[in-house]
Amino acid sequence: MIKLDDIVFLTDLYEFTMAYTYFKEKRHEEIVYFDMFTRRTPNSGGYMIFNGLAKLIEGIKNFKFQKEHIDYLRECGFQDEAFLNYLLEMELDIDMWAMEDGTVCFPNEPLVTVHGNVIQAQLIETMLLLSINYSTLVATKASRIVTASRGRSVLEFGARRAHGYDSSLDGARAAIIAGCVGTSHTLAGHKFGAYVSGTMAHSYIQLHDSEYDAFLSFAKINPTNSIFLVDTYDTLGSGVPNAIKVAQDYLIPNGYRLKAIRLDSGDLAYLSKEARKMLDEQGLHDCKIMASNSLDEFIIDDLIYQGAAIDQFGVGENLITSKSEPVLGGVYKLIASEVNGVIHPKIKVSDNIEKITNPGFKRLYRFYDNTTNKALADYIALSHETVPEDKLTIFDPSAPWKRKDLENYTIRELHVPIFVKGQCVYETPTLQDIKVYAAKERETLWDEVKRLQNPHTYYVDLSQELYDLKMDLLLSLTEK
Amino acid sequence: MIKLDDIVFLTDLYEFTMAYTYFKEKRHEEIVYFDMFTRRTPNSGGYMIFNGLAKLIEGIKNFKFQKEHIDYLRECGFQDEAFLNYLLEMELDIDMWAMEDGTVCFPNEPLVTVHGNVIQAQLIETMLLLSINYSTLVATKASRIVTASRGRSVLEFGARRAHGYDSSLDGARAAIIAGCVGTSHTLAGHKFGAYVSGTMAHSYIQLHDSEYDAFLSFAKINPTNSIFLVDTYDTLGSGVPNAIKVAQDYLIPNGYRLKAIRLDSGDLAYLSKEARKMLDEQGLHDCKIMASNSLDEFIIDDLIYQGAAIDQFGVGENLITSKSEPVLGGVYKLIASEVNGVIHPKIKVSDNIEKITNPGFKRLYRFYDNTTNKALADYIALSHETVPEDKLTIFDPSAPWKRKDLENYTIRELHVPIFVKGQCVYETPTLQDIKVYAAKERETLWDEVKRLQNPHTYYVDLSQELYDLKMDLLLSLTEK
Repeated sequence: MIKLDDIVFLTDLYEFTMAYTYFKEKRHEEIVYFDMFTRRTPNSGGYMIFNGLAKLIEGIKNFKFQKEHIDYLRECGFQDEAFLNYLLEMELDIDMWAMEDGTVCFPNEPLVTVHGNVIQAQLIETMLLLSINYSTLVATKASRIVTASRGRSVLEFGARRAHGYDSSLDGARAAIIAGCVGTSHTLAGHKFGAYVSGTMAHSYIQLHDSEYDAFLSFAKINPTNSIFLVDTYDTLGSGVPNAIKVAQDYLIPNGYRLKAIRLDSGDLAYLSKEARKMLDEQGLHDCKIMASNSLDEFIIDDLIYQGAAIDQFGVGENLITSKSEPVLGGVYKLIASEVNGVIHPKIKVSDNIEKITNPGFKRLYRFYDNTTNKALADYIALSHETVPEDKLTIFDPSAPWKRKDLENYTIRELHVPIFVKGQCVYETPTLQDIKVYAAKERETLWDEVKRLQNPHTYYVDLSQELYDLKMDLLLSLTEK
Repeated sequence: MIKLDDIVFLTDLYEFTMAYTYFKEKRHEEIVYFDMFTRRTPNSGGYMIFNGLAKLIEGIKNFKFQKEHIDYLRECGFQDEAFLNYLLEMELDIDMWAMEDGTVCFPNEPLVTVHGNVIQAQLIETMLLLSINYSTLVATKASRIVTASRGRSVLEFGARRAHGYDSSLDGARAAIIAGCVGTSHTLAGHKFGAYVSGTMAHSYIQLHDSEYDAFLSFAKINPTNSIFLVDTYDTLGSGVPNAIKVAQDYLIPNGYRLKAIRLDSGDLAYLSKEARKMLDEQGLHDCKIMASNSLDEFIIDDLIYQGAAIDQFGVGENLITSKSEPVLGGVYKLIASEVNGVIHPKIKVSDNIEKITNPGFKRLYRFYDNTTNKALADYIALSHETVPEDKLTIFDPSAPWKRKDLENYTIRELHVPIFVKGQCVYETPTLQDIKVYAAKERETLWDEVKRLQNPHTYYVDLSQELYDLKMDLLLSLTEK
């Protein structure tokens, strides 16, 4: 198990090698800026849901060396006691800005910006990426699944297939933030107050003399929680009839209702429609039909298209691992150094234009249309720039001749201060508040941005000054 | 962060609902058997590397309710104080058999078998699957990558893209077990004694006035660890020449060597061949070439096919997330109940023949050819059966007319006892010992089983008695 004390070693060794080298170069007190961002969206989606800030805050608060770490680093060959002592006494005093958990975000936007001395800013890289990458990935995937479900509820069921203990919990949290109504994960209920549900596995039914006995016994003990798994033997031949029989023999005569049946295998479109008919014929119109079994946004979309009579989807491994694209390739790049208070922007070139970074210490703004309240565009400017409040012409940085005039808008700055001189100045909202916030965030996007396939590309543009700076830096590098 | 105390809540809520129901049915002391197994291999590979036992042991040892858990369950609606007290006082006294970490395994084989009362055996399901699924998945993926590398060394570099903190560590451990020579993950070095390495990121070079200055300064401070990242500006135009220049200007005159260069972007086949020529022309034959950038077994295979001059591969997100197939669908199924010491085998039917379980308490044997020492077949028998030591005819359970005579073999039972009446009777070997064991395990497989695509299907057969039992149970269920 990873302990809080281990956080400082959730670190690629090269961060220590660089820290050591900066120290020996006597450059370790130099001030730098780093941006964390992604270069694309997973699943070629139209947007992402930023998430993981709560975890990152915990990580930074606990990023503290103990003697055991220093001893290990000495073993690794960092045999400079002044350096080791520097680490041992190090208290992070970085500044950090970030989006809030649940914020809609896009590629190439600074999601987190770090300002501090080069050792500190560099050492937290791995932990920072590890905190944000997965949580953002799964919140984004879950948002797609919730979109596909078009108002039907989605439950997160993936714990057993997650990549480890904390992935199971962080994944459940991300799913709730992105709109899932609940999870099967008990710890997510206990820790975050998530709605948790779950009734029976096939083993419960197998351990009874018959499926009918199993349902009846369950109904007697859990009369208000009668959700029966109906596919152990034969869904339409025995499962649904036995569920109905228990409703009629026991639940209804005792003032209860059959709450739901769950389909976990077979042709979910066909079985749900047939089950719906069977339930309705017996007046069990209020009995919900729940489906699980390797669902994702595309299967759900297709089930609804086929008219499947499913009220609730339980989504497991495809959500918690973001199976269709299990990596959010978030990166953490140097964007500036600061000497005597003067910022020197840095750029990372690449043969691949998309991999060239946006230099300098920047702010990120979102423009909302005052009539529709929908988001119009995001706008990245250098930190000292002011943004016109009435009228602005934006342009596509990869095709600068494509221009668009904005007016009648409201501007919002998307970053909030998280750490100031190492002190946390941000209070993490409750899970419920983040969920509500994320739902409002999604509301500001046009459906065309949210659709699953071939979505509209939302505008993320650069200020003219930032664009010019980028071009100048590129030119100066190629002239070297 | 997940704490040891949280382990008991790494549990889908339905396990508690079932436990509660069994308790109210007064069936909670009934004895059952569960098997954990997979139905297929990830990436359609020919084998898997079992892994996660060390984690599972830690989980079971710490599966203990605290008052806070009981309070939460009461909130969830389990308002029977006798039940809650039963949980609070519960000490796991299960028996457990499992393969050892690093063992080669196959679909439909019991990887873990649990024997105990129905509440205990049921409650640990989620945590058990969570412990084994990911660790086995990544060990299996890493083994494929190591196979593709054909003797060149592979380093695990994926921490920042892992699905959470413990995934980064467990993934690094799995990679080492499966044959990676090291990892970038500092905590894996500290906790497990893994070989850890890492030198510089692009940011280090960007913070110096020139690439040459960066390399030179790094070489002076880390003369025995001179591995230069050469793609920050222009790999062949500046990176490799600057690396060579620093070797000639500083390293060689001072008695050191240029250890390696690292390519992290661009056409790795072309760049490595050109870089090799440039290095060799300057007599730097001993300078290794290392490559990273979204590698996996297929890209590595192709690079080698193209004659890339790469000595070492750094593999990141595609390994640690098993990106090409990020889910090991391990399941945990009821296989028997036991009444007064008599075992009653249970079967789970399905329309899908592959999903039908193997009933009963079973043992798993591997047959090795005495001439080649290669594994011939695995053989699953009921626990009371004896296995002939000289001669055996096995048959394919999905095509029973396909028969094969075995002789001149050595038999090995693959399960070892892990817990006996709740007491751990197994000592987890060191990472280094598991790595050596796993390498020997892989040696027992024919290359045809290990190849990446369309591998030979290894025989996993059932004893005649087990096969007959399965058929009888199926027949009796369909006659119901």
